[in-house]
Order: sequence, then structure tokens, then C-alpha cells
Amino acid sequence: MTIGFIGLGLMGGSFAKAIRLVHPEYTITACDKNQAVLEDAVLDGTVNTAYPPSQVDDMLPLCDLIFICLYPAAVAPFILEHEKSFKSGAVITDIAGVKQNLVKELESFNRKDVDIVLGHPMAGSEREGYTHARADIFKGRNYIFIPLPSSKQESLHMLKSLAADIGFTRIIETTAKIHDHKIAFTSQLCHVIASALVESAEDTEITAFGGGSFEDLTRIAMINAPLWTELFIENKEDLLHHIEVFEKSLNHFKKSIIEDDSTTLMRSLEKVRTRRIDMARLK
Amino acid sequence: MTIGFIGLGLMGGSFAKAIRLVHPEYTITACDKNQAVLEDAVLDGTVNTAYPPSQVDDMLPLCDLIFICLYPAAVAPFILEHEKSFKSGAVITDIAGVKQNLVKELESFNRKDVDIVLGHPMAGSEREGYTHARADIFKGRNYIFIPLPSSKQESLHMLKSLAADIGFTRIIETTAKIHDHKIAFTSQLCHVIASALVESAEDTEITAFGGGSFEDLTRIAMINAPLWTELFIENKEDLLHHIEVFEKSLNHFKKSIIEDDSTTLMRSLEKVRTRRIDMARLK
Repeated sequence: MTIGFIGLGLMGGSFAKAIRLVHPEYTITACDKNQAVLEDAVLDGTVNTAYPPSQVDDMLPLCDLIFICLYPAAVAPFILEHEKSFKSGAVITDIAGVKQNLVKELESFNRKDVDIVLGHPMAGSEREGYTHARADIFKGRNYIFIPLPSSKQESLHMLKSLAADIGFTRIIETTAKIHDHKIAFTSQLCHVIASALVESAEDTEITAFGGGSFEDLTRIAMINAPLWTELFIENKEDLLHHIEVFEKSLNHFKKSIIEDDSTTLMRSLEKVRTRRIDMARLK
Repeated sequence: MTIGFIGLGLMGGSFAKAIRLVHPEYTITACDKNQAVLEDAVLDGTVNTAYPPSQVDDMLPLCDLIFICLYPAAVAPFILEHEKSFKSGAVITDIAGVKQNLVKELESFNRKDVDIVLGHPMAGSEREGYTHARADIFKGRNYIFIPLPSSKQESLHMLKSLAADIGFTRIIETTAKIHDHKIAFTSQLCHVIASALVESAEDTEITAFGGGSFEDLTRIAMINAPLWTELFIENKEDLLHHIEVFEKSLNHFKKSIIEDDSTTLMRSLEKVRTRRIDMARLK
């Protein structure tokens, strides 16, 4: 089994390290535009062979499984541009946080002997790059797979099994449409809220008055700006829908406070408490 | 040194346990309406002597330091009602999350030989009650003291020293006005946002699509509803101000997304990132 990584940043690097740990017998190859990263990954034993972008067409024909770990908008162009280089029988997957446009763009992929199964590993860090890649960031996390109409069951099975090997515990499959709608809530809306909250702080000394809540709500605001700009705009319809629903909820709480309506406020907070405890129980 | 606790819930219990750990030589007494809690606290060695509410006037004359760990609105009534029972030379402190009204209510406290120094330990848990009280919840946390005009330096010094003993690392003093304004942001606004976010979720199965962000932003929504209802309404002016500033920020992000304005969006996210990193550095 040879696994190839296109992009060896935080996510690609963490996948490579996690797979290296549980499957020392696999061959891992990687391509990254940063030569220093490739050298590090070879030196630390994660990657067997490294390729600069100019030689990626020498690497792709060797890989049984390819993880495209690029920014979302770069995924389809890469796959289409290198369509001819993939090994017959290979499986391609990605890690992009938005899927509907990607599915559309990949309709022009013509290789019937190469299988694409899109994926979204729900893990990450506010730190970027291979330096911060860690084998253990997937432990207990969710992995969402988005098979294409053409995806083979055996490819999906192989990916799910690999995901479980490296620590993912809740592994589901869904459509690109449902994925984008749900992720706009759990992920993109949360990043917008965290960012707005940091922006609305009067000063940076505010943490002297912090008790953990502000810190927990805004950790994800140490954001990878170009990546999240792409994700917000790519998934704007679903995201805007969720922002508006959230604004309504916020307004509902605001109204009770303005009106000193303790009864409604307490009832709403009780409901929220029960709801959040139910969510934790399902987790 | 005899320390008395009025209320032995999550906070009172955690204080008592933490003090017991670092100062085994102190005598700790406690009064709570829940008899079972008092028995537990005596049995586990935290409290030396326990008093039911009906006998609190027998307990107060023994205490050199009294922690009032009741809901915010109950603090001043308790102090005023038992004004005559406090030991001469005693220091009284509290843990309420809002202070301005409290300061006003305490203006009618007449004992010159008893010192009041209000305090807000910035720690807690989404779990309630003595059962969840733990000695270590104060480690690395902020403690804000709000001295009254009458407060003595030596009382403040004693409290700060005790706070450091049990793990608080950033111990500051400020006015009730500044406290309420800042806390409305770091604490109450965050709880309103977390609650609105849970309310706006389409279903409780949403966590299958979670990657940690939603979970981190809403942990505090497992809220003590009566307590936070009191805090929100007690501090409504400051809280509403911060909600409105936050809404403006949210709207600013929304606008960039609606207009596909990647440039503004990316610039805003970069600023937020830098700002949040600065905040973490100060922490």
C-alpha cells in the first residue's frame, strides 16, 4: 500500500504521522511546495519519499490512495490537471470543508478506473503547518465521507477502516448538500461568531476579566484567514441562513433581557441546558 | 483562623476544599440549606463544623473570614439580616458575578468593626453542587476584588494571599462599575451567545457533524438557568451594550460574505487572528 499526500500542512502532516504510527508497513509519499517541510518529514521518518510540485506526476502513478490536502478551491483543479497521472485502481480523497461545488467540478473527471470519495475529517488546530502536525488530533473525532455517485463501496470501506485505525470514532457518510448545510452551522457559523466576538472586544487586556468562557468561545478565532475566507464564501448560502437563524435566537434572548422577563428567560435557558446536555450525551 | 461558608455549592464547596488542602490548620465551618451536603462535607474532612440555616447566628460569631456563596440577589439581604452576628474584626467576602447593585445595597451596613471586600473568582463549571466541587478549579484563574470605600488594605491583602495560595494567578482589584462592564462582555455575553447558538441548532444530532468548535462554543450553555437569569437581568445595561456591539461585528462579517468581498473578509479575519493571539499572550 502506497499512500500519497498532496500538501503536507497541519492536516496532511497529521494524517501522514497518524498513518505512519499504525501502519509502519505502508509506503508514504508526499508532495509539498515547501522543500523544508519535505525534508523534515523524511528526516522524522513520516514520509518515505518526497516530491517537489514539479515532479508530482512521477509520484501519482505510484499511489494506491491519494489524500489531497490543499485549500478547498485547489482540490478539483489539481485532480483534473493531473487526471492522467493517477494509478489505475487508485482511490482519491480530500479534506475540504465545503463539498457541493467540488462535486460539480469533478463531474468532468473521466477516469473510470480511478475512484474518488470525498471526505471531511472534523479535526484541526488553531496552529498551522507541518510543524504543528500531530498523530493524535483525530482521536475521538468525527469523519464525514461524501461518496460520489461513481464511488465504489470497497473504496469507502477502505477509507472508513483507515479512519478508524487512526482514531476517528464517529464515521458517517452523507451527501454534499447535507454536509455543507450542517457544516455551515457546526463549523463556519462558529468561526464567524468567534471572530465577531474577538472583533467586538474593547481591548486586548479584556482577558484579565476572563473566566474561561471568552477564551473557549474565541480559541478558533486564531483563524487561518485565507482558508476560512474561502470556506465562508464558498458556502455562503447555508452560512447566511444559519447566521440569520442565530441572530433571531440572539434577539429572542435580548428581548427577554430588555423586558426584564425573568420567566421567559429562565425557561429558555432551562431548555437550552437540556438540549446541550442531550447533544453531549449523543456525542 | 476560622473560615465560614454560607452556601456550600459548587463554588463554596470548591473554595472550602481548596483551602482545606493548603491550610489544614484552619477551622472551616459551613452553613447550607441542604443537610446531606453538610454531612458529606464533614465526612470527607472538608468542614469541621456544619450548621443548618436556622443556626447560622451561632456560626457567624466564630468566623474570622466569611465567604457568602449564595446567588447574587441573596448576598446583601443575608449580610444585612445577620449584621449583628458577625465577629468583631471579621472580613466578609462574596463571589457574585454582578457588583454595582450589591455595593449600593451594602451602603446600609453599619458595622465599622466588620470589613467587607467583594470578590469575583473567575472560575466555575457547567456542573453544579457540592458533589462537583473540586479543589483544583482555581488553578491559573483570575480573581477580581472590588473593595468598598471602607475596605481595609489588610483585609484585601489577606484575601489576595489566600487566593494565591489556592491557585489563582492573576489577582486584580477594580471598581464595581468597571467589573460589571467587563464581566458583561467576557462572561454574560458569552453565555448569551452560547445559549442562542444551542437554541438555533436544527436538531440535537448536529454533533455528528461537529469538529470541536460547536462543542467548545456551547459547553457553557449547560447553564445554571436561575443563576444566569439573575446575572443577565441584574447587569442588563452593560450586557445589552455588548450584545449590540457584537451584533454590529457579526453584521460586518455577514456583509462581506453577502457581497463576496473576499478582500475585506480576509483582512478582518487576519486582524481578528492577530488580536486573539495578543489576548492569549497577555493571559
